[in-house]
Amino acid sequence: MATDTAAPATGESSGYEQPTIDVPALRRLLDGRHTAIRELVRTNLAEYADVLVDAETMTTEEYRDRVRDIVVTMASTGQTGMGFPEEYGGGGDIGASVAAFETLAFGDLSVLVKVGVQFGLFGGAILQLGTQTHHDAYLRDVITGRLMGCFAMTETGHGSNVQALRTTATYDPATEEFVVDTPDDAARKDYIGNAARHADTAVVFAQLHVGEESEGVHAFVVPLRDGGQLLPGVRIEDCGLKMGLNGVDNGRIWFDGVRIPRTNLLNQFADVTPEGRYESPIENPNRRFFTMLGTLVQGRVCVGGAGINAAKVALAVAVRYGVTRRQFNATSEETEELLLDYGMHQRRLFPLLARTYALHFAQEVVAEDLHEVFSTTTAPELGDNEHRRRELESRAAGTKALGTWHATRTIQECREACGGAGYLSANRFAALKADTDVFTTFEGDNHVLLQLVAKGLLTDYASEFEDIDQFGMVRFVAGLAVDTVIEKTNVHKLIERIRDVLPGGDEWDQQAGLLDPNYHRMMLRYREEHMLAGVARRLKRGIDNGMNAGEVFSRVQDHVIRAANAHVERLVLDAFVDRTAALEDGDVKVALNLLADLFALTTIEADAAWFMEHGRLTSQRSKAISREVNDLCRKVRPLAVDLVDAFGVPPEMLRSEGMLSGLS
Amino acid sequence: MATDTAAPATGESSGYEQPTIDVPALRRLLDGRHTAIRELVRTNLAEYADVLVDAETMTTEEYRDRVRDIVVTMASTGQTGMGFPEEYGGGGDIGASVAAFETLAFGDLSVLVKVGVQFGLFGGAILQLGTQTHHDAYLRDVITGRLMGCFAMTETGHGSNVQALRTTATYDPATEEFVVDTPDDAARKDYIGNAARHADTAVVFAQLHVGEESEGVHAFVVPLRDGGQLLPGVRIEDCGLKMGLNGVDNGRIWFDGVRIPRTNLLNQFADVTPEGRYESPIENPNRRFFTMLGTLVQGRVCVGGAGINAAKVALAVAVRYGVTRRQFNATSEETEELLLDYGMHQRRLFPLLARTYALHFAQEVVAEDLHEVFSTTTAPELGDNEHRRRELESRAAGTKALGTWHATRTIQECREACGGAGYLSANRFAALKADTDVFTTFEGDNHVLLQLVAKGLLTDYASEFEDIDQFGMVRFVAGLAVDTVIEKTNVHKLIERIRDVLPGGDEWDQQAGLLDPNYHRMMLRYREEHMLAGVARRLKRGIDNGMNAGEVFSRVQDHVIRAANAHVERLVLDAFVDRTAALEDGDVKVALNLLADLFALTTIEADAAWFMEHGRLTSQRSKAISREVNDLCRKVRPLAVDLVDAFGVPPEMLRSEGMLSGLS
Repeated sequence: MATDTAAPATGESSGYEQPTIDVPALRRLLDGRHTAIRELVRTNLAEYADVLVDAETMTTEEYRDRVRDIVVTMASTGQTGMGFPEEYGGGGDIGASVAAFETLAFGDLSVLVKVGVQFGLFGGAILQLGTQTHHDAYLRDVITGRLMGCFAMTETGHGSNVQALRTTATYDPATEEFVVDTPDDAARKDYIGNAARHADTAVVFAQLHVGEESEGVHAFVVPLRDGGQLLPGVRIEDCGLKMGLNGVDNGRIWFDGVRIPRTNLLNQFADVTPEGRYESPIENPNRRFFTMLGTLVQGRVCVGGAGINAAKVALAVAVRYGVTRRQFNATSEETEELLLDYGMHQRRLFPLLARTYALHFAQEVVAEDLHEVFSTTTAPELGDNEHRRRELESRAAGTKALGTWHATRTIQECREACGGAGYLSANRFAALKADTDVFTTFEGDNHVLLQLVAKGLLTDYASEFEDIDQFGMVRFVAGLAVDTVIEKTNVHKLIERIRDVLPGGDEWDQQAGLLDPNYHRMMLRYREEHMLAGVARRLKRGIDNGMNAGEVFSRVQDHVIRAANAHVERLVLDAFVDRTAALEDGDVKVALNLLADLFALTTIEADAAWFMEHGRLTSQRSKAISREVNDLCRKVRPLAVDLVDAFGVPPEMLRSEGMLSGLS
Repeated sequence: MATDTAAPATGESSGYEQPTIDVPALRRLLDGRHTAIRELVRTNLAEYADVLVDAETMTTEEYRDRVRDIVVTMASTGQTGMGFPEEYGGGGDIGASVAAFETLAFGDLSVLVKVGVQFGLFGGAILQLGTQTHHDAYLRDVITGRLMGCFAMTETGHGSNVQALRTTATYDPATEEFVVDTPDDAARKDYIGNAARHADTAVVFAQLHVGEESEGVHAFVVPLRDGGQLLPGVRIEDCGLKMGLNGVDNGRIWFDGVRIPRTNLLNQFADVTPEGRYESPIENPNRRFFTMLGTLVQGRVCVGGAGINAAKVALAVAVRYGVTRRQFNATSEETEELLLDYGMHQRRLFPLLARTYALHFAQEVVAEDLHEVFSTTTAPELGDNEHRRRELESRAAGTKALGTWHATRTIQECREACGGAGYLSANRFAALKADTDVFTTFEGDNHVLLQLVAKGLLTDYASEFEDIDQFGMVRFVAGLAVDTVIEKTNVHKLIERIRDVLPGGDEWDQQAGLLDPNYHRMMLRYREEHMLAGVARRLKRGIDNGMNAGEVFSRVQDHVIRAANAHVERLVLDAFVDRTAALEDGDVKVALNLLADLFALTTIEADAAWFMEHGRLTSQRSKAISREVNDLCRKVRPLAVDLVDAFGVPPEMLRSEGMLSGLS
């Protein structure tokens, strides 16, 4: 145990005894039920730690090949195939596949993204959208990496709005083939990982045309290369250098009359008969589309988890630097002060540390949900748990948005907290920052994802949920009576419930203890419900005033996104509090409670203006919360090193010997 | 004029007429009195636009040489020597030298930083700290770039705390030389730009030892290389790859008994006689040190301006992308909506645009101040305007901190607002983000700089100001009577003044118009004064309660930094409002007033909790401000393209044809 007892103790809170953290025990707790796979990934990361250096020293082409080789070698250890059925050589454990991916985010993120493209997006599309023919034909080779593939969804002109993609696949009954075409440059597939060099095959999303009918976006298996040579009708251009992730070969793809057999349509949710009849068990085209898309939710779950784990790496470096580096005399004339003993330094890092823990446990819930939903039902039984799937998609979207924004913010703050040393590539921040930057916009732009969350909440995951455009939501909500909306959003019921769990009656928000988790929960719950009701009222008012639905939406959009954010933050807090409450009493629980308090109070503090505007926070109490946050930071200080050590980032991945050796 | 009249007009504010912006006129206004040099730099940037591509395609060594060559060629146009005396071939115009540097920030930032190192830091140190002997010996060659140099101040173990540097220069009267030594690895010079490859000579900051005495940190000219070969006793190591700025060759330097002539001490503020007597016109060693350091303030002024201009580049790309790219149907079933017509997109970008304008005018004030202070007095007359110099240093520190944080935040938000396209190196964000990242910590860590600002305010730039450590400030403030502190911070006087400029008496904060610039000013002024008084009271209370001065400081540190931030934001607003008020009535003035309102209200909104906590904002008014901000954003929408065009970023520097061509 590295608990740093030299740090100044906090003398104010009588009765508080500083806990001693059993780091291995806390690490086991964080690893959860997937310890084995996480340890395998850690071992593999350490084995290929050189890739962090290769990323800087190799040419782009060498680095891309190196990343491909590592991915294939890791595949041979079983690490990357956990999510596939055992009969094809997979691990048959979806939860483990998410855990493996999250842990991989401690290392080089080109390797991570290449794994995500090959096994998550490409392999996942074949698994989820294809049927046994496709599984038999491809999965075994996908899992070993013998067949490299890409996921050709995004186009230059359309990313988040997948339904509006413009690549076409036209059925030709004469030859029983689909003809795939790129109508113009705006419809070229763009930013496609694995496309520029390594993919032999693509899953291509295109508008399906059968006869006179346009049946919407479907997925097709389209071979791209044979023996490394492009096939006829396929044109590929390299996207060139990117801000980061340069070990992944992103490319643009154009199709010109590319013919593929009829059976290359991934036909889990719809098929075309040889004679050219379109058939689907799901009648509503919107619903069909979003059901298809929904099966790919694992990608978002994985990216969210990866973002959270990338933030852990940054914190591990910055906290350790904070107990190594001294600057300016402060408490003593002789010795300069450790950075981490400065109040401001604590304020910068510890709320981010607390939020990282909170997001970790929220991510655990999403991953577990995903595992259950996708392990217990197969596609034909979808109807049974459709509502649950919609909830999972919403939760995955929200956690991805908050987790990846958190990564961007945390890595930035940690870099600044390490000064010039943090700017050198030899330390981790350069790669961490550049590589994770796109997490906030890929696998769904975060703002669009939060809109999705809000829509689900406002419509209670009604069938209209599937119509992702703003018209749908605005009209649906405007169609409800205001009372229904308010009923739906439950502010009144909430107030009733609060009476049961908190003292003070109507004064609960002034009487409850600042460190009472029920107070935290009720504050975040109140904010969420109130914001949602407010959005509903605004949408309805706009429509009632005769405004165009789109304009109504544009004007309410910032409220929509804040409401969704409030919802997800409440879920995150609930996950953290629930997980901590279930622990046996002991020092680990004390420490996690400190972090949960810090997360909750900094969340309230960050939105204190809203709480005051809405009469739920007095100015005195708001100031008291800020004081309490400072006090909590001082209590976290002696535990900080243990708290980052428990993340279990392999030491080889910190790569910051120069910074952490005491030289500074 | 590209004013986009197709955008939805705001119909609410009766009487508001949408202005039409004369872009060239607004550009002239922004360029100010240095139009000529700014245009020269723009021409040079366009001429060498290829370097933006070279940065990606060349090896590090090639890129470094390329940047060096460009810098030397630019020097031959007179662009980089504006700040040096005319008798040595310079331009004799400090204001123009800042304008040139700021404008250079539109382009490749390695070129910018190399220019900063060679002409600002190295040349500036010789100019400011040296005397005529040094000027005669070096300046002509510095200005042409024939003599390349570096500025060896920072050590691995000490950056912000310059007084604690540990390199030594010991006087040897026997040979009339100084002997320069690096005592250990923590005292090696680190991150030194130009050191790894190109510098022949360094200005080295070292502890001067004369006889038994230690005289503190002084600057020495130390030759490093001859004909490219390292001189005896000098060891240099390459810092290797960095997050960005890889066209600058940063290195580490060790000195082992390196002997330099006595006359290599830059002796403007102190000298050692041949027989070994230390002499200085400034008796107090602290004061001497900070007077020396103060002459180097131009570096901070330049970095702040560069950050602000880098933000302009990001906004120019993101705003143009926002009127090119469409996504999702919103107001029409047929056409997808332009990104910039979404309320949330406006909310993300326009407050940053307004703040960029505000910071631009604040920077103009600092640069003009610098020009006046350094053009009108020479070193021997320092005493006359010492107070003014201290104020300038404080203002430069604060503007640098806010300007560079603003750059980081703006570039990030703009990148995200451009999705995947923003992630490609072929667009500008990759380089902008990576290169500017270190701006927040070099030339003074932003947090340390804001502490400096706070200290100046609390001590009214008293002589103790120079003692930068926390002890000094805490003790000084604690030594004052509380009344003196409150008197000093003027809250009461402020309230008197408010009565004169705003209606409503004690209710001014509820009665004044939301768009009344006096209301904005008084709100920011009130916040500043109140926060400063609060800091003073807290410091005093801590000491009175018997706490160690360092611990008191650590606990109050977040308040100290917030108070300094409040002060600088107030200065920024004042600069913007003053500049706008002085304009002739017309459309440009209307547009700038919109931006000033938007800046002021989003600044209040961002700290709304504080204003509510302190009884200066009701919850109703707080909500009204948020509504007003949205309304202002809608009014800025049709002007946005013109507002970014007026920055005058050369089109070659946007480098985003792929994004801005309408393909997306």
